[in-house]
Amino acid sequence: MNDKELLNRVKGVKTASRILSSVSTETKNSVLYTLAGLIMKKKGVILKENLKDINNARKNKLSESMTDRLTLNEKRILEMSKGAREIAALADPISDVINEHTASSGIKIQKVRVPLGVICMIYEARPNVTVDATALCLKSGNAVILRGGSEAINSNRILAGIIRQALSTAGLPENAVLFIDSTDRKFIYKLIKMDTLIDLAIPRGGEKMVNEIRKHSTVPVLSHGKGLCATYIDKSADKNMAVKVAYNAKVQRPSVCNATETLLVHKDIAPEVLPGLYKMLSKAGVEIRACANARKILPGARQASEKDWSTEYHGLILAVKVVESLDEAITHINTYGSGHSDSIITGNKSAAEKFLKEVDSSAVLHNASTRLHDGGVFGLGCEMGISTQKIHARGAMGLNELTSTKYLVRGTGQVRE
Amino acid sequence: MNDKELLNRVKGVKTASRILSSVSTETKNSVLYTLAGLIMKKKGVILKENLKDINNARKNKLSESMTDRLTLNEKRILEMSKGAREIAALADPISDVINEHTASSGIKIQKVRVPLGVICMIYEARPNVTVDATALCLKSGNAVILRGGSEAINSNRILAGIIRQALSTAGLPENAVLFIDSTDRKFIYKLIKMDTLIDLAIPRGGEKMVNEIRKHSTVPVLSHGKGLCATYIDKSADKNMAVKVAYNAKVQRPSVCNATETLLVHKDIAPEVLPGLYKMLSKAGVEIRACANARKILPGARQASEKDWSTEYHGLILAVKVVESLDEAITHINTYGSGHSDSIITGNKSAAEKFLKEVDSSAVLHNASTRLHDGGVFGLGCEMGISTQKIHARGAMGLNELTSTKYLVRGTGQVRE
Repeated sequence: MNDKELLNRVKGVKTASRILSSVSTETKNSVLYTLAGLIMKKKGVILKENLKDINNARKNKLSESMTDRLTLNEKRILEMSKGAREIAALADPISDVINEHTASSGIKIQKVRVPLGVICMIYEARPNVTVDATALCLKSGNAVILRGGSEAINSNRILAGIIRQALSTAGLPENAVLFIDSTDRKFIYKLIKMDTLIDLAIPRGGEKMVNEIRKHSTVPVLSHGKGLCATYIDKSADKNMAVKVAYNAKVQRPSVCNATETLLVHKDIAPEVLPGLYKMLSKAGVEIRACANARKILPGARQASEKDWSTEYHGLILAVKVVESLDEAITHINTYGSGHSDSIITGNKSAAEKFLKEVDSSAVLHNASTRLHDGGVFGLGCEMGISTQKIHARGAMGLNELTSTKYLVRGTGQVRE
Repeated sequence: MNDKELLNRVKGVKTASRILSSVSTETKNSVLYTLAGLIMKKKGVILKENLKDINNARKNKLSESMTDRLTLNEKRILEMSKGAREIAALADPISDVINEHTASSGIKIQKVRVPLGVICMIYEARPNVTVDATALCLKSGNAVILRGGSEAINSNRILAGIIRQALSTAGLPENAVLFIDSTDRKFIYKLIKMDTLIDLAIPRGGEKMVNEIRKHSTVPVLSHGKGLCATYIDKSADKNMAVKVAYNAKVQRPSVCNATETLLVHKDIAPEVLPGLYKMLSKAGVEIRACANARKILPGARQASEKDWSTEYHGLILAVKVVESLDEAITHINTYGSGHSDSIITGNKSAAEKFLKEVDSSAVLHNASTRLHDGGVFGLGCEMGISTQKIHARGAMGLNELTSTKYLVRGTGQVRE
């Protein structure tokens, strides 16, 4: 593929996006049901192509966790198929009237939901993103350009082919989904400059990749960035709940963005909760890095350095700080946190409301684990990811977040005076 | 001001934005009322500073229209003051609950409106933007960095000083508004890279300036771009209404973004409406550039070239094309238009609904002038401008568009299973 071919293909996606924007809910759902069926029917060839990626990963000495992420098996294929069916079952956001009113001139103004148009997904490793993200984009009336990681190119190619087959079976243009069948990164840089054809770029991956896209893109970007989350145990916390929630927030799945990296504990409750929690965490293999005051209670813990407060460990390490007050906890989180998901454990309602109001994060939780900030858990359906920026969409994204709006104005001959 | 000073000042704005985000509606309104009063009280010194800008404009041989745009007088000062009062009277969007539900685990999830944080306005010429934009940002709980055009630096400096005085009178940090008191463009490039401190950049000005910001900014950008608007007269249009609306859309204020640049007319009605409209438009000084079929009806009109369909004239020129069908009109608009504001004049409801649905613009109008797409006319209050992008905010912007959202999650000890 040369530059001109790429441009022509993206123009084809734009044309297909116009058609898709007016398609009925039934037709969109029929694509998703067909897709769900085809995935199961073709699982043999999907597994065969996936094996090529796994073999390449071994040859290229990819990390175990990376190799695991790109591996498909019967269960994961079934989940992809189920995901497409679940998205079909969600309400169609397109044409929803968000608000309406009659202006003083008598014109009737409606603000309605419309598709964004063309979305460019740039992602890494996991082949299920190819199906999940595409299904969400199609259900919300968007065409999509897929540029997955080079590690998974064989898996992604076969899945994209199946998606295009489902489109064509439903009588829709195959060009509504364009798979970039090249591992050459130059195409990414070409795509993110096509701001007259592409409406949104969604980079999903490591911080470095996301920042690189933000730096070079003239297409608007929806970043899925860093998750440096904190859990704060207030002096009025229920001690059992505090230990249970903090433990879950760190240990249940430490590699993901909504896992807790920093535990803040009020000085009045620290002597009562820290020793027990320390035992449980140590047993689970968690290394504690504690401030000087926390070490008075946990003499066995390692001393935390300034750097620990701003490090996303992605693993079994927890920074622990004893704070003097609720205010200090809030300031700490707003200073060192990444604005992702932060939780307070307290029985004091006004402390909880102050924390919910003043912590500037995409999700702020009271008496609940940070791990609960998730589209699925929230009941928004399968998710595109968690946006860490403030404009357009913040936090867990659902179908609504893949839409734009449009004013429909109905008059009887009104002009500007 | 050196780079380090700029960084420190922007950090000061970020700190002030945290305070502003929790301030009561009453306090925010008191800033706006104080500001409205101060503007009237200090009109003498405002006019004196503005005169410096006018004199510099003459010295630098600025165009008459540019000089007019930066000129203040008693009436324009009164309007600025009134604008601030009107914004005080609007409902405060902050803390609005957009939606709420209880998830299957029992956690209660609210999505609420919160301020964006720090907004950087980059604008040209008109000093009233300094007051209008700041008043909207403050009412929506945002801190703001103002980088106005060099032509208006003396006027902007005095107005920014008055705004800071109003903040301090109300007991709020003056740093909630930072005026960049330099015409050196290098500070713009520094600001739009400060993506950890600034939440949104709003460039308002010529297409070239807006594109330059989009190209270099790592801060998310809300573009206020090109307005290439069309009016389509359908075969079932009321002829008198069609002539009145099309005339208004071109002539009432031709220099602005929602004025019509292209008139499309169905072939069946063209012979009946074009001659009369041509006479009226010619009388108003409008030059017609017509397609071959339109010239059969208007032999006096100049022949349009391909370039005319994609030119934003910003003046008294109108491109006219006779089309075979509603579909051709829609395709023309989606091909050549800028997705700003487009109108259909028709008595046929299903033609109108097809047009409203299929034209991909921020506002699509039926039996109404494109000139009506405006925050004030829509009743959204004084506006920040009209966004021409699809993400975050599209079309006329009000206070809601200057906000982000946040999930508030209230649980009873829920963890991730």
